[in-house]
Amino acid sequence: MALQTTQPEKRKGPVSTEEGEIRRLMEQYSEAVSNKDLEEIMSFYAPDVIAFDLMPPLQVIGKDAYKKSWSNITQMGESNFSIRDLHVTARGDLGFCHCLCHMTGTTGEGQKFDSWARQTACFEKINGRWLIVHENYSVPIDMENEKPLMNLDPDQKPESH
Amino acid sequence: MALQTTQPEKRKGPVSTEEGEIRRLMEQYSEAVSNKDLEEIMSFYAPDVIAFDLMPPLQVIGKDAYKKSWSNITQMGESNFSIRDLHVTARGDLGFCHCLCHMTGTTGEGQKFDSWARQTACFEKINGRWLIVHENYSVPIDMENEKPLMNLDPDQKPESH
Repeated sequence: MALQTTQPEKRKGPVSTEEGEIRRLMEQYSEAVSNKDLEEIMSFYAPDVIAFDLMPPLQVIGKDAYKKSWSNITQMGESNFSIRDLHVTARGDLGFCHCLCHMTGTTGEGQKFDSWARQTACFEKINGRWLIVHENYSVPIDMENEKPLMNLDPDQKPESH
Repeated sequence: MALQTTQPEKRKGPVSTEEGEIRRLMEQYSEAVSNKDLEEIMSFYAPDVIAFDLMPPLQVIGKDAYKKSWSNITQMGESNFSIRDLHVTARGDLGFCHCLCHMTGTTGEGQKFDSWARQTACFEKINGRWLIVHENYSVPIDMENEKPLMNLDPDQKPESH
């Protein structure tokens, strides 16, 4: 197919300064989530962030409301959060990135979990600082059985459709 | 709180040319989905798009693979797709947007549905055309009952946490 000639390798140049900055931020963010450090986690968000969280409601508007959603994390048991397949695109004062998030540990009730989600984060540089102005956390849905697929293995071969 | 003084009204200026362009694209996109026009839908995507779709797998890599996911739409019965709460941020050759998507109609088997999802789309202007290079479609999850919440009303009052 003609369009297939535009490969990412051709189109994308070397990592920009902005992309390096966001990549480092995402590493720090990941560490903050792993440490369940609520204040540190919230420092990455803009005051007017609009979040599509893994949990309801459909959208969470503003940092104060999102902090309430995030506060659940402090009630968890041992846990670890890491990201992989991070793609960052950024230039000037705009950027976005997406990655797969691996969360393992125990719930507050001591139940073990090992789950994978997807994260998309959209950034603006505001007063010289990159902040997340929008975020979408999600897992795929098994439509037929109406089940969220919380523990898909990212290394599994895709099903043939 | 000090940070709350930075309100969207203050920070954001008038809609930029780029934002207007993406807003119009999203209207056309929405119409293409409503019309179940597979070729038209696919024209919005970059060849190297990475999509976090509502259905598995965790990530769909490349337009050809994503077209296979989208091809399900042609098997649906009567349906309608519309978006609301569209927020667009774009400058230069980068942009991102998010919105709530309302899908109503009947499945191929004639079963009625009326569902809401969230869409985040990330754009790059490539050879003078805005294309979606990344997308995240999602619904919130009821974690306790392990159920996807496919028909949340966006006008419902958020639960108090």
